[in-house]
Order: sequence, then structure tokens, then C-alpha cells
Amino acid sequence: MAIVVQKYGGTSVADLNRIENVAKRIIKTKEAGNSVVVVVSAMAGETDRLIQLAHKAAEDPHEREYDALISIGEQVTASLLSIILNKMGHVAKSYLGFQIKILTDQAYKKARIIQIDAKKITKELKKGTIVVVAGFQGVDKENNITTLGRGGSDTSAVALAAALKAGVCDIYTDVEGVYTADPNICSKARMLSKISYEEMLEMARTGAKVLQPRSVELAKKYEVPVCVRSSFTDGGGTLVTKEDEEMEKELICGVTYDRDQAKITVVRVPDRPGIAARLFTPLAENNIVVDMIIQNASIEGFTDLTFTVSRKEIKKAHKIIGSVSKDIGAKKLEIDDDVAKVSIIGVGMVSHSGVAAKMFSALAKEGVNILMISTSEIKISCVIQAKYTELAVSALHDAFGLDKKK
Amino acid sequence: MAIVVQKYGGTSVADLNRIENVAKRIIKTKEAGNSVVVVVSAMAGETDRLIQLAHKAAEDPHEREYDALISIGEQVTASLLSIILNKMGHVAKSYLGFQIKILTDQAYKKARIIQIDAKKITKELKKGTIVVVAGFQGVDKENNITTLGRGGSDTSAVALAAALKAGVCDIYTDVEGVYTADPNICSKARMLSKISYEEMLEMARTGAKVLQPRSVELAKKYEVPVCVRSSFTDGGGTLVTKEDEEMEKELICGVTYDRDQAKITVVRVPDRPGIAARLFTPLAENNIVVDMIIQNASIEGFTDLTFTVSRKEIKKAHKIIGSVSKDIGAKKLEIDDDVAKVSIIGVGMVSHSGVAAKMFSALAKEGVNILMISTSEIKISCVIQAKYTELAVSALHDAFGLDKKK
Repeated sequence: MAIVVQKYGGTSVADLNRIENVAKRIIKTKEAGNSVVVVVSAMAGETDRLIQLAHKAAEDPHEREYDALISIGEQVTASLLSIILNKMGHVAKSYLGFQIKILTDQAYKKARIIQIDAKKITKELKKGTIVVVAGFQGVDKENNITTLGRGGSDTSAVALAAALKAGVCDIYTDVEGVYTADPNICSKARMLSKISYEEMLEMARTGAKVLQPRSVELAKKYEVPVCVRSSFTDGGGTLVTKEDEEMEKELICGVTYDRDQAKITVVRVPDRPGIAARLFTPLAENNIVVDMIIQNASIEGFTDLTFTVSRKEIKKAHKIIGSVSKDIGAKKLEIDDDVAKVSIIGVGMVSHSGVAAKMFSALAKEGVNILMISTSEIKISCVIQAKYTELAVSALHDAFGLDKKK
Repeated sequence: MAIVVQKYGGTSVADLNRIENVAKRIIKTKEAGNSVVVVVSAMAGETDRLIQLAHKAAEDPHEREYDALISIGEQVTASLLSIILNKMGHVAKSYLGFQIKILTDQAYKKARIIQIDAKKITKELKKGTIVVVAGFQGVDKENNITTLGRGGSDTSAVALAAALKAGVCDIYTDVEGVYTADPNICSKARMLSKISYEEMLEMARTGAKVLQPRSVELAKKYEVPVCVRSSFTDGGGTLVTKEDEEMEKELICGVTYDRDQAKITVVRVPDRPGIAARLFTPLAENNIVVDMIIQNASIEGFTDLTFTVSRKEIKKAHKIIGSVSKDIGAKKLEIDDDVAKVSIIGVGMVSHSGVAAKMFSALAKEGVNILMISTSEIKISCVIQAKYTELAVSALHDAFGLDKKK
């Protein structure tokens, strides 16, 4: 029997009625002749409630205890769904990270899955059991509870699909699939029927919220076909899969944006070896994730260095960089937390020229000033003033004709 | 260093402020030079909320999943308390049943603890860690989550105290200690400074809610000194310990009542061997706990058989007994679900005569009719009409002079 892994997000299991609907969908899949493993998120809002509770208890809650607390939401959903599946006449069992077990490293709040013991699940599937797994959580080698970071249930699902060699990993969410742009700010956005792992990864990393980037990395590594679809409709969704010829014909597959950006410029640093290390090591030590880094060519022995961090961390980063920049003889610091990043993504750009130029022209035409540029093989990102985000996304969507299926 | 086990009940941890107070009490005990193991209940009302949720999901929720769900409340408290203790500058770690591990049998909803691995806790205590354990839960040998029944956190605490050979097991609750009667219905009730395991067990079994009976059994078996005290005051509480001479001087230590009683009489059964087995086997098979059983002497080959069950189970019991009673040729069934049980308890009654007579007289004087009588070595229980409960308790309290310390 084919193994299907299905993951249901928070809005899909927001209340008992929705959980009943999810149960019906699961039973349908089971009765179509599949072995079904289900990964669930916490009921919508539940994890936020737990996070708030933790922060009410302490400003900076102890990480081990924080993870033990915020992992609870998924446990509630898993047992409720199993209760309902059993009521509907199907044998279902809920499992937590420690029971399977989902072994992670010890990095609380953002643990990585090291290994999943598929034996227990396989045994239950052979008996016909529907296996329901609490997403987002695992245990380290000392059996401490760890969590996988925001959107971690996606990663739980893909990791399980990989461990079980499942035919498909369905990610059920509240949108129909992956769009060429966020439909909330771009009315012409179109759903994609297919996208490559690489493109999906860049889209997730540059702001598309539909999948946790780590889950896409895992899917790519183990070649797990992932289907993003809605639990409220019966649409086919978007298949995230290996790159194929058809995809290469598309120049650009999507436009993304990320408003959670703040920019720091270290002005006129004496350009000596080791300067960048001096700046970024203390940031890393304080767990501040740096997104884009731009260093201009050195002029008369001085250079400017600009980088972006999450807006939430700008104060902490400012403090750290403030003291380092004095040590390394920088002239001054410039902070701008009113910026956003817009990106275009597409495997097609590898073999086409002029994509960047077209992007810059489209932004220029709308009067949007570009503050930073960063490129990868299949992505171009520009940092712009935050107020232009919506305008820029629509302009780029139009410029690359994303509303029309090619 | 002496090991102290402290258990905090639901009202003691009802909100973050109260948990902070509990944390202060724990730190005080630690700073007095003790190694501290804390067992916590769910925040008041939380387990009930989860139970309701389970029953909303299914009328008769699957037991394994039900236990996984209702065990969550203690997990929340354990991590919140640990977050607060760490914030206050003390190393504290929360542990769930699987992490310690607290091994139980597979009887979901009322599992019994088989074994506790003290090694992990001892190791942490040696490092100076405050160990916080989620009460009420354990895991069976296949790592399924089990719960220990209402009041199960008391049992968790006593079992931990036994496994760790702790000097004392403090049970912190919302009352000052164990009283001669429920102060809510008997204004003259007096707190006991000491009570024997046997008496406490009978009091708990006959209606005193202060400790789970199983926790007292365990304490008795492993001779763990248990101190029942309030987390809101600094009183000395009641010590539950081995019987001593002082206790034997007291005739009666307390009066208890239980309103959760319903009575079934099987009238005029042909008195043949195996009749009782025919009646009670199907009840046991349906997990209905029978409390008192009275069989009158046989007259002309017929007998009457009366027993009590929990009021919640009277309908189910009626149905089962209804069909059996026809098979065994009983004349009819009489049901009365408006009864209560009042009991007097005391190790002193072993060596004194006339205790029962005094009890019956006291009830007669108030016009309370006795419907059933059952005695053990240190307890006499009478089933009476429910409306007389309060009157009977006060009358017995007076008759045995329980308001005066002897």
C-alpha cells in the first residue's frame, strides 16, 4: 500500500468542526487504499497563547522549559483528531516526538531533525492504524523536548515522508496552493500547478509564508514530492518537485516580499582583512540572523558595509555593532528599520539575460528607489523603502507577465 | 542533603501569581539546605476543560487518546513553574512521565505506578537542580501516556518520595490540613496534627477529598511521612504517619461523608451458591465500582442483596442488574439514588466497645434512619437519606467530642 503523509495547519484544525472535516478527508484517503500518516499543527492561535504565557512568566524564558511549554498545542490537536477518528470507526493513534521517536539536535526553539525511527509507524500502518503525529516537536538524545521553529510542522511532515519513503507529502493549509505573488497584495496573482524545490526554497526564504524553508530543503534532499493544497476545497494544489523542462521555459515563477527587514550601514570602515569577521561574529554569537550583506568596493582604503536583520532584532544588533564599529574605526552607523525586500524567483533566469535589468527598470518606472541588491542563481532581491512594497510587487508581477499561464 | 518532595495542587498553581508564590516557597526550602523535588497538578480548572473538550469530540473518547489529552494540564504547570524558578535564579528542570521515567500499568484513566527510575532525578539533585515533575501522568512499557485518576498527583508525589527515600512528602493544598470533618458542613471541625496511614486511608476512601486513597496506600506501604498543608499559610499541617500510642488513645479521629452514592436492592433472590458472582461479575466487567455490599441472612431459601455504586453509574448498573436479576429469579429491583454515606474512623475503636452503638444512637436521636451498615476494623459506615448528611455529620462529630483535643 502506498504511504501518504498529510499535514494539516492551524487554521485547518482551528476547532472541533474543522477537525471533523479533516478526519473525513483522512478517512477518504485511507479508504482509497492508502496507509495514512497525519501530522498536525496546534489549533490556530494556541501556540501564540502558550508563547504569551511563557513571556508573562519570564521576560526571557528558559529555553528548555519554553520548548516543553510551546510544544503542547500540537499534542492537543493530535489526541483530539485521534479521538474523532476512533469515534468515526477507524483505529487511530496519536504520537508525540518522544514516542516515535523524532530525534533532533539540542538547539531549542529551532532544533533540526537528525533521525526518525520509522519502525514503530510502519508496524502500526501494517495493522491499518491511522498514525497521527504531533508536528513541530522532537526530543534530543537526552529526551528533552525540542521544537523546530515557526512552521516546524511542515518539516515534521516532510521528514516523516522521507523516513517512510512516502509517495507524497500533502501540506494542507488555508490557501489553494503556491501563488505567483501574495494574493492579498497582488490581485493578479495566479496559482502555480508546479514549482521546483529550488524555486520554492527561494520563495520561502524571501518571504512566501506557505512553507517553512527547512521543510523544502529536506524535501529537496530526499526528493519528497510535496503538494501544497487547501483543506477547505478539493483543488489540486501546487506540486513542489524536481526541476523539469517545462519549468525551465518559465523565466520567473514568482514575486515575493518580506517586510520584516531592517538595514544597518557601517560607514567608512578602514578596509583591512578580518573586518567582516569582527562585525558578524558577535551577531552570530547572539543568535542574530543576518540576511543580506553588501560590501562596496574599497575606495582609498575605506569601505561601506551594509546588512539587514529582522526588525525585531535591530535594537540588539545596533547595540552589538555600535561597540564593534568603534573598535574597528568606522566613521558612523546608519540604521533604517523602515525597509522591505522584494524578490523575483525563477530557474529560468539561469539561461536568460536581462532579467535583472528588467526588474530594475520596472521598479524605476514606478519611482521606487533601490537601496540594496543581492542576487543568487535563481533569485534577485532588492531592498526598498517599506511603503513601496505593494506597488513594487504588482509592478514586477506585471513586468514579467506572471498573470498569464505560459 | 535531605530530599524533600513537595506537591502543589491545582488551586495552589491556579495562575502565574500563585505559581510565583509556590516558587518562593520552593526556593526557601532549597535554601534551607534541602534537595527539592516538586510535583505539580494542572492549574485549577484546566483538566476539567480538557475532559470537556474530549467529551465534545466524542461521547466515549478512546482511552489512550483521552489520557494523552488530559495529561497536558500538568505539563503546562511544570514548565511554567520551571520558567519562573529559572527567572528567580535557580536551576530548575521540568520532567514528564516519560522522561523520568514513571512506569505504570496499561490501565488508562486509572493507571498504577509500577516503578520510578530515580537515577536521573538523583543526578540532577546532586547538581543542585530543582526537579519539577508533572503529576498525574506516567507511561506504560510501550511508552503510551497514562493517567493515574483523579487526585493522581498525590500518588505521583508519594511514589517519588518512596523511590527517592525522601525525608518527607509535603502535599500542599488549599486547606490547612486534615480535619475531623469537612469544615464546610461542620462548623466545629478541628484540624488534626497527626493521623495514622490506616485512618487517613479510611477517611479518603469514605469521602475526605484531601488525599487520593491510592497515595495513602503507597505512603503506608513505603512508610513515607506525608504532611498535608496549605500553600497559602505557614501552618504545620497534618502529618500522616505510622500509628503511635498517642493515636490509639483517640477513639475516633474523624467523620466523613460521601454524597456520590446510589443504592440498588435485589429483592427476594433464591439463595443459591454463585448468586453474588452472577450479579457482580458483569458489573466488574463494565468497570463499575461497587462500594458497600450487604446480603441479609437467608429466610425460607430467599435473600435480599443490597449494594451501592457511584451515582453517575446507577443507570448503567441498573441496566446490567436488571437483566441478570431476571435470570437468577429475583422478585424485583429497588433503586434509590438519593442516599449518602456517613462514616466514623479511628484506630481506637479496635480496643473499645460500644462505638457502633454510640454512632447508631446519635443518628437515631436526630431521627436519621439507617438504610445500610458496613464496618471494618477501624471504620463504621452508614448509608442514610442524602438530605440528612449535614445533620448526621454534625451529630456524630458532637457525639464523639471531636471538637475537643484530647
